[in-house]
Amino acid sequence: MASASWFEIAPQSPFSLANIPFGVACFHGSEKPVTTVAVGDHALNLAIFASKNGFSELATIKDHLHVFDQPTLNELAALGRHIAGAVRRYLQDIFKAETPFPHLLRDNKELRSQCLVLLTQIQMQLPFQIGDFSDFYGGMNHAVNAGALFRGQNGALLPNYLHLPIAYHGRSSSIFVSGTPVRRPWGQVVEDINATQKNPIFVPCRTMDFELELGAFVCGGNKQSDNISINNAEENIWGFVLLNDWSARDVQRWEYVPLGPFNGKNFATTVSAWVVLADAMEPFRKPGLKHPGTVLPYLQEERKDFTYDLNLQVQLVSGKTKKVTTICSTNASEGLVWSFPQMLAHHTITGCPMKPGDLLGSGTISGKTISSLGCLLEQTLNGRQSIKLEGGEERTWLEDGDEVILKGYAGNEKDGYVGFGDAAGVLLPPHEHKL
Amino acid sequence: MASASWFEIAPQSPFSLANIPFGVACFHGSEKPVTTVAVGDHALNLAIFASKNGFSELATIKDHLHVFDQPTLNELAALGRHIAGAVRRYLQDIFKAETPFPHLLRDNKELRSQCLVLLTQIQMQLPFQIGDFSDFYGGMNHAVNAGALFRGQNGALLPNYLHLPIAYHGRSSSIFVSGTPVRRPWGQVVEDINATQKNPIFVPCRTMDFELELGAFVCGGNKQSDNISINNAEENIWGFVLLNDWSARDVQRWEYVPLGPFNGKNFATTVSAWVVLADAMEPFRKPGLKHPGTVLPYLQEERKDFTYDLNLQVQLVSGKTKKVTTICSTNASEGLVWSFPQMLAHHTITGCPMKPGDLLGSGTISGKTISSLGCLLEQTLNGRQSIKLEGGEERTWLEDGDEVILKGYAGNEKDGYVGFGDAAGVLLPPHEHKL
Repeated sequence: MASASWFEIAPQSPFSLANIPFGVACFHGSEKPVTTVAVGDHALNLAIFASKNGFSELATIKDHLHVFDQPTLNELAALGRHIAGAVRRYLQDIFKAETPFPHLLRDNKELRSQCLVLLTQIQMQLPFQIGDFSDFYGGMNHAVNAGALFRGQNGALLPNYLHLPIAYHGRSSSIFVSGTPVRRPWGQVVEDINATQKNPIFVPCRTMDFELELGAFVCGGNKQSDNISINNAEENIWGFVLLNDWSARDVQRWEYVPLGPFNGKNFATTVSAWVVLADAMEPFRKPGLKHPGTVLPYLQEERKDFTYDLNLQVQLVSGKTKKVTTICSTNASEGLVWSFPQMLAHHTITGCPMKPGDLLGSGTISGKTISSLGCLLEQTLNGRQSIKLEGGEERTWLEDGDEVILKGYAGNEKDGYVGFGDAAGVLLPPHEHKL
Repeated sequence: MASASWFEIAPQSPFSLANIPFGVACFHGSEKPVTTVAVGDHALNLAIFASKNGFSELATIKDHLHVFDQPTLNELAALGRHIAGAVRRYLQDIFKAETPFPHLLRDNKELRSQCLVLLTQIQMQLPFQIGDFSDFYGGMNHAVNAGALFRGQNGALLPNYLHLPIAYHGRSSSIFVSGTPVRRPWGQVVEDINATQKNPIFVPCRTMDFELELGAFVCGGNKQSDNISINNAEENIWGFVLLNDWSARDVQRWEYVPLGPFNGKNFATTVSAWVVLADAMEPFRKPGLKHPGTVLPYLQEERKDFTYDLNLQVQLVSGKTKKVTTICSTNASEGLVWSFPQMLAHHTITGCPMKPGDLLGSGTISGKTISSLGCLLEQTLNGRQSIKLEGGEERTWLEDGDEVILKGYAGNEKDGYVGFGDAAGVLLPPHEHKL
């Protein structure tokens, strides 16, 4: 049962004491972002909390209090997963009705008024300075469906998929925090991709899509030419966000052979603002899809529960009617065949250095039913059939003004929800191009 | 004719007054890197030069002197191409025998002893903090040759190549400055890629290759959803380095369909330490290869001299014999069909933000003859024929202990050379893997 708190936390709050997600925010109109955690409908300003001796009972963080007064979580994550884990457990205790510590917050009204602020009154920022972003293809149902739509049934799942977690290097400069609008990109498009004569035209993307993914932020890392072994990978995974890998399908389709997606993906990636620590997701471990291939020893994990019982949804808010339709409901365990530790072990097996704040995308998470598919490409069979929205509208691809909102939560009301903040973005109309 | 200087600069020096390349170095054993330029066989410490009023006659830089006391060139580049251009011209004047300025350096022996140091006594660093690295495929001879070797003659040049500068997002965390050793990576390899049954094995890469490329560092940049038009692209290109895109061909071949190269490329990219300003390359403009396709208006350049008369060489120093063989001699104008402005215009046409310090790779620069091919994949026809080295050895791929040195220069003795520093790296044997 959810821990009793002296602080009011609604039972349906995504930010129960079982969660304590970390983020970066500007408080009270200040333009200086600082570290924060979410508790119920409040944010705790950790820079102020630390400066007022809030961490006096936590020896492990004593020499590192400056990390809370930074504009990103990079320095906190660089201390390692165990330090953030200790901070989380300490803050859980601080908010519990019964705690081994002095009631530093409960019994100090002035401190509460200084550092506990309604979530509606802060401005969330991108949580990390992201050095490199690598986007994997770990959702097998998606790989099968998208492969068939791009290359036909025979080329659906390529042979390498059965042996390694396929990925491409993404663009870090265009990763935006939830709430940042995304503008429909222009690009080269070929109208009949199967024609012998290809005549690309230059137009705004006509087939705008989202992709429902989970993102993992790396802590720790490895030096050049070292690697992170599969057994050490977990301790290098700090926390998770929801990730929308916006995709211009027509641009992607024309450009992606032979070097992979480029302009079809590099205009925007949206991440949720709150980072749910990997520690907080531990109680929700669950096996994912069974891997149909042979996995080489360097990718073999002992645990079968390599992913999470994490409920995921995609809401589409129509730009025309403002009505909300849940167009996808799935679960991380229904889509993923490769785990984040496998991704990290594979990524670094060459000696590629990984740094705190690097981001891994899971790949699109799709279940088996139409309503559990994690992108429009799959839901509409590449635009061949439309989906229905509340209010009678239909969609094959996103329209200008539409908002895409990814949602995710684990847990329940009894034990407390571990919810992810939204990863939301409105699609703006394309610029008129003056070339 | 080369400008006369009061300072001794050998006529064959790559760092004539016509050059003045920028870099970052540690001086006198200090661990704090600062900005420097190369003049002859000396480096000028710009942090000290600035602090001793060396820039007193250059008003444009007066409010920005802190940029020289930084561990990267990012802040200097962020000021824009014209500011670094003005600094370069000013320093040229400072070193000329006849100059409109007071002889600040010539007539101040103490200042000279403080800030002019032999190149052999400084430690060069990676010049930029590189946010994102995008590697293009702008060398058409290479694209034709590599395409035929990977996909057969029919799939050599794919239709999109004729219309857009193909690229993939690279890995910024594994970009190393010249002199950094590179360790042979492990990876998944399939011995008979054409077999129906694919059984990858886990081994150290057996087909290690280099790629001869030019790199361009971006200054200025663009905001999300804006673009850099083809006509504004030049002013966003700050300077150039030589770039070795180390490639594990067997790993690349197995992994690269459908999302592009990943582990085959992400273990190491070597760049030369000195950044030759785009301004310094202006006198050497030259047309490149004629483009055989239709170029859409957003990629159309008015100028035909879109690349440079830049001589390029690859030296292989045998790990066994230490003998040096020049295994490739070519010229940028003999290999490139897409220009850096076209790459930048295409990259940002989606609204993808570009930041100061972002790096673009040109793609492998290969001429038409065997000795002008910019990688071993092409020179040895994917390992089917060996090349001869000085001393009688042969190579199909790189062997442990081999050093690859990229060299480049424009100009001549009369007018002064504009030389690039080496982009060099020794290939170390693979780790023994404890999994």
